Amino acid sequence: MSHPSHEDQLSNLKRIEGQVRGIQRLIEEGTYCIDILNQVKAIRKSISTVEGKILEKHLRSCLKETLTNSHQFDNKVEEIMRVIKR
Amino acid sequence: MSHPSHEDQLSNLKRIEGQVRGIQRLIEEGTYCIDILNQVKAIRKSISTVEGKILEKHLRSCLKETLTNSHQFDNKVEEIMRVIKR
Amino acid sequence: MSHPSHEDQLSNLKRIEGQVRGIQRLIEEGTYCIDILNQVKAIRKSISTVEGKILEKHLRSCLKETLTNSHQFDNKVEEIMRVIKR
Amino acid sequence: MSHPSHEDQLSNLKRIEGQVRGIQRLIEEGTYCIDILNQVKAIRKSISTVEGKILEKHLRSCLKETLTNSHQFDNKVEEIMRVIKR
Repeated sequence: MSHPSHEDQLSNLKRIEGQVRGIQRLIEEGTYCIDILNQVKAIRKSISTVEGKILEKHLRSCLKETLTNSHQFDNKVEEIMRVIKR
Repeated sequence: MSHPSHEDQLSNLKRIEGQVRGIQRLIEEGTYCIDILNQVKAIRKSISTVEGKILEKHLRSCLKETLTNSHQFDNKVEEIMRVIKR
Repeated sequence: MSHPSHEDQLSNLKRIEGQVRGIQRLIEEGTYCIDILNQVKAIRKSISTVEGKILEKHLRSCLKETLTNSHQFDNKVEEIMRVIKR
Repeated sequence: MSHPSHEDQLSNLKRIEGQVRGIQRLIEEGTYCIDILNQVKAIRKSISTVEGKILEKHLRSCLKETLTNSHQFDNKVEEIMRVIKR
């Protein structure tokens, strides 16, 4: 089976990588805990956004592709439920 | 007021940075959505761990330091509650 | 369009209702904060389980039913993404 | 050690109990999955609010009370971190 490209998330991930480096810098500069925590929280949100986008595309393409195969569809849903659970 | 160093989190953050780069690679290689999502989930967990460690140290040192100043203590708690809320 | 029955969740919800009443009792009895919080956490988990079950059934039936209608499928996915986002 | 009363949360919990009953009713009436899920989500938020209020009061009173006892303070923080982790 084919699956979609998530290359549209590369720029978001590059940005997240920068955010992670930014926090290392804050720590090295001895920034106040709460200010660091706010940045960490921002990363968590950015990650969740990427997660949502990839999941959405997965539903829209991989899941959709299985439409004609009920068994495959059910397997996909199971896979999705496992990855959604936190 | 002084605040603690979080340099003990630098290695974790370096590792998270590597994880974020790893996901970019997975995307470039056209990895299957669910496998990417599992890696993204792993990052979310790593970030939460760092968050917990910084918060814990903040409680153990910054909050503790305010023990003798009830007003400052209350302000710190307010700050903490704001950063905890998701 | 038809949609599935979630009556299999009624017993879980009855139990959650009992858990919520249990916490009121704990509070009335002056239970220690952390012990109350652990119970509240347990409710949060029970609710997430119910949420997961309803979502899973929704994917397995409502979403599946739209297989032959690409436009409807996309609308459903949008609806799902909105409800998943926290 | 004393600990604060959380009786101010009783009305919120009564309301949550009503929300849980409301969802049972929705299910019995055969409401559409997504509409049920939105209500479940609302409960999750209400629970998190109660959780936050109890935690905040715990910090403001129980933790504050240990100010003069460094060992007790550290124990409390450990307890708090355990309950915060999700």
